[in-house]
Order: sequence, then C-alpha cells, then structure tokens
Amino acid sequence: MKVFLDNNSSSKVSETVVKAMIPYFTDIVSPPGSEYGISAGIEAKEALDEARRVIAEKLNADPDEIVFTSGQTESNNLAIKGVAFANLNNENKYIIASSVSHFSVLDSLESLKKYFGFEYDLIKVDSEGFIDRTHLSELLAKNPLIVSIPHGNQEIGTVEDLEDIIALCHKFNSLIHIEASYSFCKVPLDASKPDLVTVTSHLIHGPKGVGALKIGKKVKIVRLMDGGLQENKKRGGTENIPGIVGFATAVSEYTPEINKYTQELRDYLWENLKKNIANFQLTGAVDKTKRLPNHLSLVFNYVEGESILLHLDMLGFMIATGSACSSKRLEASHVLTAIGLPTEVSHGSVRIAVSQYNTKEEIDAFIPELAKVIKRLREMSPVNAEFMKEYFEMKASGKIHDEHDHHDEIEEHD
Amino acid sequence: MKVFLDNNSSSKVSETVVKAMIPYFTDIVSPPGSEYGISAGIEAKEALDEARRVIAEKLNADPDEIVFTSGQTESNNLAIKGVAFANLNNENKYIIASSVSHFSVLDSLESLKKYFGFEYDLIKVDSEGFIDRTHLSELLAKNPLIVSIPHGNQEIGTVEDLEDIIALCHKFNSLIHIEASYSFCKVPLDASKPDLVTVTSHLIHGPKGVGALKIGKKVKIVRLMDGGLQENKKRGGTENIPGIVGFATAVSEYTPEINKYTQELRDYLWENLKKNIANFQLTGAVDKTKRLPNHLSLVFNYVEGESILLHLDMLGFMIATGSACSSKRLEASHVLTAIGLPTEVSHGSVRIAVSQYNTKEEIDAFIPELAKVIKRLREMSPVNAEFMKEYFEMKASGKIHDEHDHHDEIEEHD
Repeated sequence: MKVFLDNNSSSKVSETVVKAMIPYFTDIVSPPGSEYGISAGIEAKEALDEARRVIAEKLNADPDEIVFTSGQTESNNLAIKGVAFANLNNENKYIIASSVSHFSVLDSLESLKKYFGFEYDLIKVDSEGFIDRTHLSELLAKNPLIVSIPHGNQEIGTVEDLEDIIALCHKFNSLIHIEASYSFCKVPLDASKPDLVTVTSHLIHGPKGVGALKIGKKVKIVRLMDGGLQENKKRGGTENIPGIVGFATAVSEYTPEINKYTQELRDYLWENLKKNIANFQLTGAVDKTKRLPNHLSLVFNYVEGESILLHLDMLGFMIATGSACSSKRLEASHVLTAIGLPTEVSHGSVRIAVSQYNTKEEIDAFIPELAKVIKRLREMSPVNAEFMKEYFEMKASGKIHDEHDHHDEIEEHD
Repeated sequence: MKVFLDNNSSSKVSETVVKAMIPYFTDIVSPPGSEYGISAGIEAKEALDEARRVIAEKLNADPDEIVFTSGQTESNNLAIKGVAFANLNNENKYIIASSVSHFSVLDSLESLKKYFGFEYDLIKVDSEGFIDRTHLSELLAKNPLIVSIPHGNQEIGTVEDLEDIIALCHKFNSLIHIEASYSFCKVPLDASKPDLVTVTSHLIHGPKGVGALKIGKKVKIVRLMDGGLQENKKRGGTENIPGIVGFATAVSEYTPEINKYTQELRDYLWENLKKNIANFQLTGAVDKTKRLPNHLSLVFNYVEGESILLHLDMLGFMIATGSACSSKRLEASHVLTAIGLPTEVSHGSVRIAVSQYNTKEEIDAFIPELAKVIKRLREMSPVNAEFMKEYFEMKASGKIHDEHDHHDEIEEHD
C-alpha cells in the first residue's frame, strides 16, 4: 500500500493532463508563431494563447499579464529580482517580505543584499502565521520598492487575508507580490489587485517545471531570462508548450468540488487524529476556513518529525516535515520559528496534505499507523522530552506569552 | 502529408522518451531526497542521479558538474550572468562572445551592459562563421572574464574547432563557455576542457523545458534561481524529474547511427537540390564534416525566405528562415550579417534540418515542391532582383571581396 499525503510538496499529474500533453510532445513540435502564417506554429500558438487565457481567467487577470516560467522558484525570483533590477540605480533599494515566505523569496532577498546592494526586512507574523499589520505599517513607512507576502503558507497552511494588506501597500506606493503557489485553485484569489502573483503547476496535478507570474501592466521589471522575445518580452526561451498545456489543463480540472472533497477529508483526518493521538498541537491558522483546504500541520510533542516520516514511509505513507525544500538545511524551519515555536518543539513538526486522489479508507488506514508510530517513538527515544513536557505545561498554564502569541486560539490535545 | 524539416528549432519527442517520463508524472511524485531514507524520494533521487550520470558521461564531465536547468536559454543566462555576477564588484567587467552567438547569449550581454555596468565585444567570424583567431587574440588581450563561443551554429550549422580556442582562452586566463545546444549528441565534444557548456533536450527528441549547464568545479558562479538547495546549490527549485528523465533518455537513444543516417539524408537533399534548383548558395561551413550533420542552410537568390516558408507550409513542409527565435525582431539575421551577407541576400535564407524521423521519400517529395515554389516566387515577385543579380554577378567575377570572405570556398549554383 502506497498512500501519498504530501501534496503540498508535489502532486500526482492527472491522467487527463498527461493525455493533453502527449500531442505536444510527439506531433505539434514547431515553436509557436503565427507571423508567417505557418500552420504548425499556429497550432502551438493557439495552445499557448488558450493556456494563457485559462490561467488569466482563474486569476481574474488579463492574459497579457501572464508570463509562463519554469515554476514557482523562477516566478518568485523574477518577481523579486526583476523589480529590484529595474531599480538598481535608485537610491532606494529597500524590500520587505513576510518572515514566513518561501525560500525562493527569502534567498532572492539574501542574494540581492549580498551582491547587489539591496536591503530588506522581514515582516513579523503572529502565532498563527498571519502578517502583523502594525509591523507591516512600520516597515511600509520606510518606503519599500516591493512587498512579498504568501497567500497560502507552504508549511503551516495559513491563508492570509490580503485585501487590507494590498490596500496598505498601495497606499504607501509599494508594489505587492503575492506568493500564491499553495493556494492557487484552492482558495479564491482576485489577482487583479496585487501587482505580481506567483502560481505553479506541480501542486495542482499539473507537471513540474512550469509555472506563471502575473505581472501587472504598470510594473517595471527586468527579465531574468534574456534571449528570444517570447512571453511579451518578459521571459526568453523556447516555450515549454506541453508543460504549459498540462498546467492549463490541470487548472481547468481543478473544480470547487475538489476543494470540498479535500476539505472534508482533511477535517475527517483532523477529527480522527484528535480521537486517537494525544499530545500534539496544530500549527498555523486555527480557523479552518483560513487554512488551505487540503492541509494540516502539526507538532507532535516529544518526538522528531524526521523519525515519524521514516517510520511511516516504511509502512507506505508519505508525509512531510517542515518545509520539504528545506530538509537539506538541517536547521529548524524558519516558519515555525517565526510563529514562535522553540526549536525543540518544531522538530516534532509534520505536514499532511491530501488530494482528490486520497480516500477515507486511506485515512482510516493511516491514523492507527501514525498513532502506533508516535507511541513507539515516544517510548523508544524521549528526545528532549523533559524540556518539551515543561514547555507545554508552562504554555497550558499561561506562563509563556510572547507578543505574537494568540495562545488561546491554538488547539492543544492531550 | 506533414514533413517536419525544422529540427534545429525543435524536435519531436520520441515515443520511448514519452514512455520513460510517464511514471514520473503519475506515480513517482515525491521530490528527490534520500536524507531521511524516504522511499518515494529515493526513487526520484535515483532517477535524477542516473540522468546526471548519463549527461555527464556524454560530455566527459563529472556528474557533480552538471546542473539541470529549464533549457538552453536558462543555461546560457546562468553561464554568462552567473559568472558576471560573481565578478560584479571587480574592476574588470569585460566579456566577449562570438558575433554569431545565440540570442540568449547576446541579450544576456546587453542586459549586463545596460543594468550592471559590464562591457562586451563580439568576436568577428569569417564568411563561413568560424571564429577569427586574430580578432579573438586581440580581444583576449583585454582580459575578458569569460568568452562565449557556439560549438554548432544555430543558423548556419558551422561547427567550430574548439581545441585551439579553448587553449587560447585559458592561456589568457579567461573562462570559456561553449554553447553546444545544437551540436549536443551530434558532434563529439569533450566538455572536460571548457569551463562551462550549455546543452539542451528539445533538439534531440527530448522534451522542451529542460537543459543543463556543465559548470567546472573551479568556476565561481552566482546562481540565478535562488531558493532550495537543489543542483549542488547552483539552481534552486523543485526538480523537473519527468523532464530530466526524458532528457537523459533522449541522450541515451541518440546513437552515432542516427548521425550517420541524418548526414546521409542531408547529403542526399543537398545533391538533389543542386540538380533541381538554380541560383542558390550554401551558408556556413562548406566542408561538410564541419557542419552539423543534419543541417543545411541556404540563401535563394531573388526571393524572400518568409515567402518560401509560407508556400511550403501550405504544402505540408516545415522549414525555417534565419534564426527561428528571431522572427519577431523583423531585422536581418545577425548571423548572416556577421558572415558578410548583405541584408538583401540574407532575406532569401532558409534552414533545413532533418532528423531520424525523416525519410528519403520525404526528401523526394520535398525537392520538386521547393523547386516549384522558388520558380513561382521568382516569377511572381522579383523583389530586389536587380540588386541581387548584380551582387551575385560581381561576386562571381571577383569584384566583391571583404576581409572575411572566403569566396572561393563558397559553392554557388545556377
């Protein structure tokens, strides 16, 4: 039995998406182009235009604003560095981003600082991962060129309320970039408001290696991929038509019914976890309507997330710990640190993300195995058990408070 | 009947490549990673390692030197800008490249000049597109950080002799980047010598949206895609495993027999063109062993390349004019200009590139149709006929000579 519950790291490409791509692999080979009326180029051009229309429609953007990229990382690099490079000779070289941003945002900022003379600050979040509006206002007063905020968080699933943030950024004349890779097709987003929006294919049952960036018409941006005049001169290179067609097909297929299904499955998982396992804590937004619909993130007390993963993997269940991309960094997740979890606690983090391909039967099989794994690990290796026991006791008794801690909203179970 | 003779713009993905990719779309979904012994991640990791080994072996490089990218354009941008950015604070910010380089090289240089304070010069080529060694030496004396040279030219098919060029660059302590997208798997290349080598998948029956850059271990480079620690920390982002597996499968499949086949077909095409059509001229290397094996580039006198394309397309034959990527620029091909062709002549350029999927029967069908199209166009619309007639008469009589013109080696037919 193989049960994939790590759909926020990557997702199975649907059979219909594969089928939609195949003709563009094997038959429609010419690069898109209609300037000379070449029929082969027209077929590819029409597919490209239609894909652009589908993505734009989903985002409430203009098709001309959609630039296809090689995925989330390129879209985020293009948004942040593209705007920065357009302001390279400005006196103002200041940027801000959420402290729970994706690594491709944070590392772009580090690179801009290290090599190109930019400065940046990270906006504080509260204990559920929501942007601290007061801190945002303070930093906006320093006149950042661009503000980067995640819509749905990659790790703790918190879905940010964007309306007031976008208005605030525009009030201060800052561009606003929304990292919407994890929420795209899962949570409604009116991308006509923010200046830049990142979306990606591989988290919605589309192929890896393709994504898009919505770039508002007024945004001055320097392209990162110089070369051909593709993508409205904003991204050179032969278009990955099969990938783009696959992406658009995945978007078309991702109906509200899928979200209803995954949310019910997620809630079923959550209710049954509470019934069967003690001593764990939800991370991220407590209000389920403010979480990604398919997503649960937890910290299990007294155990290591990596150990949970390893044991579950041997039983055929795949989940994630912390941010999947961060595993090689060998340090505590910056997201869990930002929401105020001590390193010792965040080591026990896991992330479970279901998809339309998961079933209740799989969840029914998963929960008792997870319960057994947790029990065995706690018996075997009480790592930091004393520290964590003390921490949770102090937290429960109200002795630990930090300024962003909405302790009373966090559900804890034992 | 559909006959695709534009295999230097893009190529059909082979059925076995598609088959090899499918499990990585639908079943092996986890991102690669073995640090926690996760089985799903191990399958992807093994596929990634094996693909890296295949590409490295083909290039005589170390697998650790291979960085997977989203294709030719990204590889060229990473090579040129990555090295430039690593030297951003140097006093020396000088770069040189062949004047017949791909647009993704030339536009990277323009971007470095416009935004980042770099300077560059382009190295002259002779009338067949070979690097002018004297000019190269002169420019090397100005101490460029990096020299970029195409191995097989995208447009005129000339295959550069690299050995002396690489030695010369290293003698002057310059890094040397080889653009080998068009020659990869088609012409042997020992990539252990040059510091950086670009290769791509979509020209050898692999998928679009994937390529690689060989980066020598001593090369200091700033990555363009910040984010995860993938690709030896030189290219962040979830790996496009299906694409990478497809790329490696295409490389494995591209045997010397394929080159023998395409070369014979190309030669057959050439011999029959000469028998059936008057007034055209080969562009690029005259010595067939110094051309891409599957490639012919021609200028037809007194006609427009675009018109030839359009008419052939209506008959089901697909070829290219100038550089396929350049068509939207609406200016004479920079490659044909660099080899000394007047604009009026280069307008008549076409490029024909065969593949293993083409047949003699297709060539037999193609030639009379091309002959008819040329004849009709010359009758219909003698654009610039007077100028070009005069030019070729003067050229034939030896009245036109420019310094790079190896006139006596160019075959002309009438």
